[in-house]
Amino acid sequence: MEKVEYHKGDLFGNKVFEERVKRSGKLMEKHGLDAVLLTKPQNMTYLIGNGRLCAFAIVAKTGATYIGVPKTDIEDTKKRCSSEHIIGVEDEVGMLHAHMHIWKELKLETGKAGVENTFLRVSMLNMLKHPHAKPEKLTFADATELIAELRIIKSSGELEKIRRAGKVADKAMEAAVKAVKAGVKETEIAGEAEYAMRKSGAEDFFRTYVASGSRSSVAHGVVSGKTIREGDLVMIDLHPTVDDYNADICRTICVGKPSEKQQKAFDVYLRAQRATVQAASPNITMTKLENIMHDMFKKEGFEENFVGPPIHGVGLEFEEPPLPAGHAFFHGEEPKEDLKPGMVIAIGNCGLYLGDFGVRIEDTVAITSKGYEELTNYPRRIE
Amino acid sequence: MEKVEYHKGDLFGNKVFEERVKRSGKLMEKHGLDAVLLTKPQNMTYLIGNGRLCAFAIVAKTGATYIGVPKTDIEDTKKRCSSEHIIGVEDEVGMLHAHMHIWKELKLETGKAGVENTFLRVSMLNMLKHPHAKPEKLTFADATELIAELRIIKSSGELEKIRRAGKVADKAMEAAVKAVKAGVKETEIAGEAEYAMRKSGAEDFFRTYVASGSRSSVAHGVVSGKTIREGDLVMIDLHPTVDDYNADICRTICVGKPSEKQQKAFDVYLRAQRATVQAASPNITMTKLENIMHDMFKKEGFEENFVGPPIHGVGLEFEEPPLPAGHAFFHGEEPKEDLKPGMVIAIGNCGLYLGDFGVRIEDTVAITSKGYEELTNYPRRIE
Repeated sequence: MEKVEYHKGDLFGNKVFEERVKRSGKLMEKHGLDAVLLTKPQNMTYLIGNGRLCAFAIVAKTGATYIGVPKTDIEDTKKRCSSEHIIGVEDEVGMLHAHMHIWKELKLETGKAGVENTFLRVSMLNMLKHPHAKPEKLTFADATELIAELRIIKSSGELEKIRRAGKVADKAMEAAVKAVKAGVKETEIAGEAEYAMRKSGAEDFFRTYVASGSRSSVAHGVVSGKTIREGDLVMIDLHPTVDDYNADICRTICVGKPSEKQQKAFDVYLRAQRATVQAASPNITMTKLENIMHDMFKKEGFEENFVGPPIHGVGLEFEEPPLPAGHAFFHGEEPKEDLKPGMVIAIGNCGLYLGDFGVRIEDTVAITSKGYEELTNYPRRIE
Repeated sequence: MEKVEYHKGDLFGNKVFEERVKRSGKLMEKHGLDAVLLTKPQNMTYLIGNGRLCAFAIVAKTGATYIGVPKTDIEDTKKRCSSEHIIGVEDEVGMLHAHMHIWKELKLETGKAGVENTFLRVSMLNMLKHPHAKPEKLTFADATELIAELRIIKSSGELEKIRRAGKVADKAMEAAVKAVKAGVKETEIAGEAEYAMRKSGAEDFFRTYVASGSRSSVAHGVVSGKTIREGDLVMIDLHPTVDDYNADICRTICVGKPSEKQQKAFDVYLRAQRATVQAASPNITMTKLENIMHDMFKKEGFEENFVGPPIHGVGLEFEEPPLPAGHAFFHGEEPKEDLKPGMVIAIGNCGLYLGDFGVRIEDTVAITSKGYEELTNYPRRIE
């Protein structure tokens, strides 16, 4: 066996991560796994405090944790990591050898390890199965459901971070809306929103959407060079990351005075979204919550214009469990029905698409013991 | 068989896409494939002019092309698509049924289709193999190498777009460097760079890197809330997307006067990177080009500080083939040795990492018949 040098993270012994690792062990027991092999930075961050690119973590049912990072990153990793087994790897071959070393040290030559099927590229999974990386009889199984269960209820510390991300989302939306006027390009609106996120401290953000005119009626309104015109509706969707946690907000703004048709669609959407947010609580299921929107659109004759799943979870990722039935399938996740205190969801993930324009309003909402707490609050106005 | 309605794209008959589809057919012949099933937006864009999220394309060896998009997106897709078979799908189940319909229409019940192993998540590939999505005897094989061969040589039209992305990268770097001073946060530097990219027309950009002080010595310097201090080196890496094409630039700037050690490392890195850029031509291999940097660092005693593969291709993605041996493996790609006119590479993908600081300079370079053309040109100065 190759010699491997371990470094101890400064957060070793930290109670938050000890509790999470212990809880993950119980879930491994439940799912018949001996360990999980993680490469998604958010999963690594959740369990041992540190996730990064070109890195991996192995967490065993017994509570042992390992993290492999580029050898350049050892000192930086130590500063915010709870593992006592930080390994610096020279290159990819070194990474695979480190895996083998750890599997053997954990005596998992014949065990079963969970991997991230909803994150790993097919080629990457093949690499993790390389004969130099994995004992022949160690098998892999999908750990997606385990990870969903592990991360789905947010602690008060996590909620506080999502609250902060929500405040950054509000500020960025304010900056974006201020920039909306005829003659300005979608790229410029996006630029104002992103600049505001950065200035408010966002260390990252998921792709910004700004779509105007008939483009506001497409499913994913990625930014284009289109110039905004009088009478356009402009859909703006933002996802800042603050201290690892995300918020999700969307508003639709009219350039000038909305047409009767635009105003009607907006009013109906807002009413449906507000009713759905206000019904969010541990006493309702995800499907019933979704149906509040569906039913109202049906009643108003917009049934055919409402496309896509309107609710998803928010946390270390801007889109994560709980996911309802129609959304979960695509993500390779198990659908979640129950809403429990500590879950965080975004309501308004898809809009009314009318061809010439679309309308959408989305907010991030935490489920509390008695109901809900709204974490994004920028005014919901069309003008 | 379910009824499927086809819409014709406005670019149907366009010579650029006809030539690409024809060339892909020849490559399918070579690789023993009857068709390719694409979900990576860039691959779809290359072959039929339109790539988007939650969409797919099927291109047959015979030249038939199909694209499935959310039903909201049909009109928007038509505006920039060369396929005569645009299909609107209602949801994921509809998408899978559309696949089956197309496979049958192409009479590929027993054929072999290429898929994107380096892009598809494991769960997504499983979905594409669903019995409702794929005839039982149609088999899938990895199309990664085919796609690399297809896209690796850029046309003059593509080069012009990368040139424009390079100019946006230069402008954004100028804005970022101007913002570098003690007391400013990394997030703010990133904000200035991204704002400049947006203002210059970038419709997207890959993750910005800004890392200062000892953080400039980590492999992936993702942005943090760290405040920049006097004496810090600040590594800034930008990747704007302009009209679908990318450029890649990195500079390292000192806040105040660099120490002797910082200046020495910077001078050596710059000399090595310049020598490598100036040697780029069809007369040298990727490995030999890389070794110019390795050899110079070895001579100067920095051998141990140079970690990672220093060269990768640039195009519809900021990182794509040609990839040299060490880099290709991780990406699930075949290594490429030959440099040919029309290839575009970034030189300086990794730095000298000295613990207290790192230095890195990266530029995007097109290979020409006689040598090279540099597409990013912001001054390479430490102060």
